[in-house]
Amino acid sequence: MKLASLKSGRDGRLIVVSRDLSRAVEVSNIAHTMQQALDNWQQTEPRLQNIYQQLNEQQSLGFEFDQQACHSPLPRAYHWADGSAYVNHVELVRKARGAQMPDSFWHDPLIYQGGSDTFLAPTQDIQIPELDWGVDFEAEIAIIVDDVMLGCSTKDAGQHIKLICLVNDVSLRNLIPGELAKGFGFYQSKPSSAFSPVAVTPDELHTHWQDSKVHLPLSVHFNNELYGQPNAGVDMTFDFSQLLSHAAKSRPLAAGTIIGSGTVSNKDRSVGSCCIAEQRMLETIEHGKPISSFMRYGDNIRIEMFDHQQNSIFGQINQNLHPVE
Amino acid sequence: MKLASLKSGRDGRLIVVSRDLSRAVEVSNIAHTMQQALDNWQQTEPRLQNIYQQLNEQQSLGFEFDQQACHSPLPRAYHWADGSAYVNHVELVRKARGAQMPDSFWHDPLIYQGGSDTFLAPTQDIQIPELDWGVDFEAEIAIIVDDVMLGCSTKDAGQHIKLICLVNDVSLRNLIPGELAKGFGFYQSKPSSAFSPVAVTPDELHTHWQDSKVHLPLSVHFNNELYGQPNAGVDMTFDFSQLLSHAAKSRPLAAGTIIGSGTVSNKDRSVGSCCIAEQRMLETIEHGKPISSFMRYGDNIRIEMFDHQQNSIFGQINQNLHPVE
Repeated sequence: MKLASLKSGRDGRLIVVSRDLSRAVEVSNIAHTMQQALDNWQQTEPRLQNIYQQLNEQQSLGFEFDQQACHSPLPRAYHWADGSAYVNHVELVRKARGAQMPDSFWHDPLIYQGGSDTFLAPTQDIQIPELDWGVDFEAEIAIIVDDVMLGCSTKDAGQHIKLICLVNDVSLRNLIPGELAKGFGFYQSKPSSAFSPVAVTPDELHTHWQDSKVHLPLSVHFNNELYGQPNAGVDMTFDFSQLLSHAAKSRPLAAGTIIGSGTVSNKDRSVGSCCIAEQRMLETIEHGKPISSFMRYGDNIRIEMFDHQQNSIFGQINQNLHPVE
Repeated sequence: MKLASLKSGRDGRLIVVSRDLSRAVEVSNIAHTMQQALDNWQQTEPRLQNIYQQLNEQQSLGFEFDQQACHSPLPRAYHWADGSAYVNHVELVRKARGAQMPDSFWHDPLIYQGGSDTFLAPTQDIQIPELDWGVDFEAEIAIIVDDVMLGCSTKDAGQHIKLICLVNDVSLRNLIPGELAKGFGFYQSKPSSAFSPVAVTPDELHTHWQDSKVHLPLSVHFNNELYGQPNAGVDMTFDFSQLLSHAAKSRPLAAGTIIGSGTVSNKDRSVGSCCIAEQRMLETIEHGKPISSFMRYGDNIRIEMFDHQQNSIFGQINQNLHPVE
């Protein structure tokens, strides 16, 4: 099943989207918003699935689906926690900062909590007042869950993964070292993120959803050139069940909690990168210093994922960087 | 004006509470929930104020107000960021961890983002599976704001402070060193917080609300003994306008964002402490090692604030620590 939120008020208006992303139907009789659907997932999910099946079978049903009319699936969420599951990326970024990565990072997941009250729409401009802050994109996978009990085991976590989507976790690289040195983690260095227009249930990924990982390449275009296409199922040290269990260690998580994978990254460097920081690190290793600059005003970032028939699964994150109006 | 949320569903049911906390009225014709009221504050605030005035003037109006029936003012929120505005407390806690505090902490606010999807009710048990995690309370003040623009100045921030309440920011002290060493800040070490039953508009504090600070003692009882009563307006290095402006540096903040002060702490040690960690540090300085243990199952923590006539302003946070059921 594929779901999206049309721009409308603060929380959007829930729609069911056809598998080929061509058509959609409103479902306000089932749930007005994505959050409402997730709050009552046991009741809403079979009814939404039923609509989805009809929509795919009857070409005459619904209206034309317009990705531009979509907000992020949850325009605002109660909890957005981002992992760093591709540990070799973390190792490279740390090296780029001149910081050492502890060995424990290979067996103890790293998670930070990000701002979830003002997400950007998938095609909304990224507005940052100062280029000196070092604006970077980070292409990631994220899961959305129903209610998760305190202490949920890795084994039990998988059943709570209800939806999957893509993220652009915008990062302000030059604010990070100062902020991390203060010891409280990211705050100003992580402005609002944007999500793919469409969130899908795990069954939509068929055999590409295995071991709580998405086994498909994540396609990143920067200014219309392919920047990276690492496989999200490769080199993911911690799968989503492990990240979720880690997040629920000391408290329950509410329905609508979003957990991100961290920047997707493969050890195979021929597949490119999902953020500029990683590219700069590779340049530093090769040339002694970074060559690529961070984003400039007018720059465009596109993030998408395709199945083996080259069909877009989640629609497209497509954003330009602009100064604050 | 005083507002509260009766326990009901995931978001509670908004009520207006009389100044003396004796009576309340439902206001579903104005807004069903606290979040709804904040989402449309310009429209809802004058209408709610009108009800509040009637409630205070007419003793026959409304039903008996029961603090036990209340959830936290926002049972779940889109953004909960906690500052460390009482810097001498930060300095003591760092010393207790054997960590150095950088001088920059005196002029650059420290803020972390906490879990806001599963707040505890004001009288709800704190459930923590392992006492070894070092369970501690932290008594704090918090503000709740309407929509705040990216880059909001300290000068403009004050007008966005719509409500004030108290917080128990539960902390797992023994998880903190390991978590901070990883560099991403608190996550598992900060389980769900609880808030006072009642949130009040700044005008309720009269002259005690000055310079974006609450100039009244915060009363903390641990197992029915007075543990601390520091004045929240004293030694607050960063006021709430400064914390808010810091939070909005790189992105806008949505209505319903909650910003905490961090543990209230005065340099005058005779007023006691608002958390056990601070007490343990003072013991270490005096006796060479901490004497107080962190919370044990069955322990009770009460947090309240009184005006000069000994009237409770926000109602009472009153929680017991228990193992997970």
